[in-house]
Amino acid sequence: MINETYKRRLEAKSVIRELSEYATSRGQEIGYENVFDYSLGNPSVPCTEDFTNSVIEMYEHMDPMDLHGYSPSLGNTSVREIVADSLKRRFDIPYETKHIFMTSGAASAIAHAVRLVTKPGDEVITFAPFFPEYMPYIGDAGAVLKVVPARTEDFQIQEEAFLEMLNPNVQAVLINTPNNPSGVVYSEKTLKRLAEILNQKQEEYGHEIFLISDEPYREIAFDGVEVPYPARYYDNTLTCYSFSKSLSLPGERIGYIAVNPKAVDADILAVICGQISRGIGHNCPSSTSQLGIAKVIDETSDLSVYETNRNLLYDALTELGFEVVRPGGTFYIFPKALEEDAVAFCNKAKKYDLILVPSDNFGVPGYFRMAYCIDTEKVKRSIPVLKKFVETEYPNR
Amino acid sequence: MINETYKRRLEAKSVIRELSEYATSRGQEIGYENVFDYSLGNPSVPCTEDFTNSVIEMYEHMDPMDLHGYSPSLGNTSVREIVADSLKRRFDIPYETKHIFMTSGAASAIAHAVRLVTKPGDEVITFAPFFPEYMPYIGDAGAVLKVVPARTEDFQIQEEAFLEMLNPNVQAVLINTPNNPSGVVYSEKTLKRLAEILNQKQEEYGHEIFLISDEPYREIAFDGVEVPYPARYYDNTLTCYSFSKSLSLPGERIGYIAVNPKAVDADILAVICGQISRGIGHNCPSSTSQLGIAKVIDETSDLSVYETNRNLLYDALTELGFEVVRPGGTFYIFPKALEEDAVAFCNKAKKYDLILVPSDNFGVPGYFRMAYCIDTEKVKRSIPVLKKFVETEYPNR
Repeated sequence: MINETYKRRLEAKSVIRELSEYATSRGQEIGYENVFDYSLGNPSVPCTEDFTNSVIEMYEHMDPMDLHGYSPSLGNTSVREIVADSLKRRFDIPYETKHIFMTSGAASAIAHAVRLVTKPGDEVITFAPFFPEYMPYIGDAGAVLKVVPARTEDFQIQEEAFLEMLNPNVQAVLINTPNNPSGVVYSEKTLKRLAEILNQKQEEYGHEIFLISDEPYREIAFDGVEVPYPARYYDNTLTCYSFSKSLSLPGERIGYIAVNPKAVDADILAVICGQISRGIGHNCPSSTSQLGIAKVIDETSDLSVYETNRNLLYDALTELGFEVVRPGGTFYIFPKALEEDAVAFCNKAKKYDLILVPSDNFGVPGYFRMAYCIDTEKVKRSIPVLKKFVETEYPNR
Repeated sequence: MINETYKRRLEAKSVIRELSEYATSRGQEIGYENVFDYSLGNPSVPCTEDFTNSVIEMYEHMDPMDLHGYSPSLGNTSVREIVADSLKRRFDIPYETKHIFMTSGAASAIAHAVRLVTKPGDEVITFAPFFPEYMPYIGDAGAVLKVVPARTEDFQIQEEAFLEMLNPNVQAVLINTPNNPSGVVYSEKTLKRLAEILNQKQEEYGHEIFLISDEPYREIAFDGVEVPYPARYYDNTLTCYSFSKSLSLPGERIGYIAVNPKAVDADILAVICGQISRGIGHNCPSSTSQLGIAKVIDETSDLSVYETNRNLLYDALTELGFEVVRPGGTFYIFPKALEEDAVAFCNKAKKYDLILVPSDNFGVPGYFRMAYCIDTEKVKRSIPVLKKFVETEYPNR
């Protein structure tokens, strides 16, 4: 018989995906250039030419048996070594090959990490606003997701609510910095305080609490600011990374888990991930993807467009009177809606062909997300439309 | 805390992998050409040049945003259409795009299929000998694997034992034809009888029983024989395929589930797989892999070497007096060991640098598997060694 749990999910379609589908069909009506589609977090700049050329070079010159042969279950060993070396160099943490587990993007990394450090019924805490896909990653592992309400003044961590939520069933805390959807980068102060709390609670509860750090936007930081690297502040950290955004390769499904060498059982955590992978049936990302990213490990696409767009939108939104926290990275911005019901607000915006995502799915009511991974020219054209929308629909603010 | 269930698996290392590692280290001692490594099922012929050239062409000429962008969660729509058309043409079953779900190889296909049609506690029946990885695929989905003992005279299905094992908790039956490790192709008679039994039991139990058909070796068939296609005999069939063997791309992790259009709820089963994928965190195979196989959908590597090797080994083994069923496909052969304890038998063979896999892990005691996806020249050189091993260790047979 068909599994009813999964079947029922068909009824609850993803809001983001529905909006994106609406944008596409509306684009077919009036021309896609006239739809200001801020729905989807799909990179808008190409991968680097070096990546393309490296893959072509491998296809032209490598023995196909080496290029397309089975990877070991933890990933290609030389690729893992290259990833470890790069992280070691950048973050001054003595990662070795054994600490790296190659995954099909951050999604797969988080799905593995949750299974690694929880058993069914255990709790995982995350902080609003949060990426809605955390729900299936955590729920399907059998763990229970608990959400700390947002600290809306700056989208750092609401400490009191977090402390209240902590209990001995909590086995992991999941963070995302730079954050989707707020664009906010967790400050060094936030990460230090988080580590302090977790260290204290580990002692109190007599078991580890792992920090699962979701970092697909690590390389998209603005104003020349360096994103504080969570693993530097807390030993039991599992860093989940994806090359989807940094190298604009979302379809290639390539990322990794990096186990902090100071974590408990650090030497066997990646190996256990290999065991988890057997049951999930994913067994390694594609060998082309693995070998490809290894050739350009320290490169990124030209990500400057996202900062340009951030500047334009942040200025326009504040000028229009929106309450909005200035994003420190990513390609998202998360302003407060002009009425309590974010869905109603976003529905009104649709009349102006502005596709905005209401915040409810991100665990915060009354806000909306704009994914500004689109052409700068379109961002510019959207600003007068945004102005018209606000002035027409909310004249008495 | 680290999940103890997964951690404990580290103690039970894969026998096949241990033997393969032994072969590699022994090869470093005495030269790999002197080790007759029949342990691993890794294709020994390259992918087609057309595949290589198609990927190069895409990297050179496609917009990188199209090549590397997110796939829809069921897989690239045009790729799914190409797969459906090919299956329709070959097997005369009216597959459409909606019946195809792209996966990271057969492993991922089976892991999804089991989750699709079982809930935790349900039973899945398979037939010995079987691929040992079925245990994690099924066990980690929460279902229970039941194994029908082997019919050793021909490795078709032991009907009486199967009938005894069937009960209302059985939600799926998992078959693998051509079979790893026996090399046997299920006959039309076997598949018809299987369908008859399942149809009868569906009615008796008042619920569907899905047939999960694992077919990575479909294109490796010998003696010009066509492999009977299970979905033609039974409506509720989920065909799980991989391009790992047919195109020699095991590292690229690319395959699919094809839902029989006559299956119950056929129109939504692939969509539900997309929901399962969210929790597993795999979210589609690599876009390069998907687009690549679509370009060469009806091609295979030159698979003739496997038949050559089969002939050499089958003749040698029968001449040496082994009881062995003639493989109709794959690159495996599964003879009866010359003593009851297959592990002891394979350990003795190791002294002659013959790496054979004892059958216990495949659910049958007293046999051994040879994976003859190796150079024909090496197969030839291994025959006198096999003879010496048998004559020296078992002189009084």
